[in-house]
Amino acid sequence: MSSSNSHSQSQKPSINYGSPCAACKFLRRKCLPDCIFAPHFPADQPKKFEAIHTIYGASNVSKLLNQLSYDERDKAAKSLIYEAEAWQRDPVHGCVGFISILQKRLNELQIELAIARRELSTYIVSEAPQDANAFRRSN
Amino acid sequence: MSSSNSHSQSQKPSINYGSPCAACKFLRRKCLPDCIFAPHFPADQPKKFEAIHTIYGASNVSKLLNQLSYDERDKAAKSLIYEAEAWQRDPVHGCVGFISILQKRLNELQIELAIARRELSTYIVSEAPQDANAFRRSN
Repeated sequence: MSSSNSHSQSQKPSINYGSPCAACKFLRRKCLPDCIFAPHFPADQPKKFEAIHTIYGASNVSKLLNQLSYDERDKAAKSLIYEAEAWQRDPVHGCVGFISILQKRLNELQIELAIARRELSTYIVSEAPQDANAFRRSN
Repeated sequence: MSSSNSHSQSQKPSINYGSPCAACKFLRRKCLPDCIFAPHFPADQPKKFEAIHTIYGASNVSKLLNQLSYDERDKAAKSLIYEAEAWQRDPVHGCVGFISILQKRLNELQIELAIARRELSTYIVSEAPQDANAFRRSN
């Protein structure tokens, strides 16, 4: 960001203290104070912007962020980075591959829990008559 | 796809029987037999291509698909559609929001399973000496 630039700020300022943000550096353009990318793509993390630029393109990311509030933008930027990096690791499934793994593990755990609870219920049921007899004996 | 087109085919043919695929119809261009989109974006599902075009852009999707084999392309197209539709439903988190929900549910299930197994172990431990006594009595 150019510290001499006097644009009015429609959002919180970026925090790159004089140097262009990772996006503007990558796109070789001047980083203005109201840069949509600067708060979310600091200069010291160039790989994150490169990843989302490769998968989505700067223009699509800009459009997506522009429709959100400042706080929402930061969450969206993090999600975009997460998904873009997932596409770089797995160009066939992206982060949907991870969703499939999580869903499979979730199904396994639900089955394991159902088995454990069924086994537990056999102990609880077999204990119940003893308790009833103990109650009758004590009265 | 134009049925009169005689381009050599470097991949499996698309199956849109004469009409352009959803991508070519959206992009208002001629759908050639080697169209990278046609096998994965049939004409009768225009919303799916619109979703990925809005989020990724046709050029980025084309680049991503071009680096893959035919079978991998179909999986990648499905994942791209899934993620793009997730961004349309949730413009702040995309499908990362669903990953967070799955991870939270996975943690809850792991805790529930640990509790059930701990409770089960108290019954199994309390049964063990009785079994040992029964074994001693029978010998």
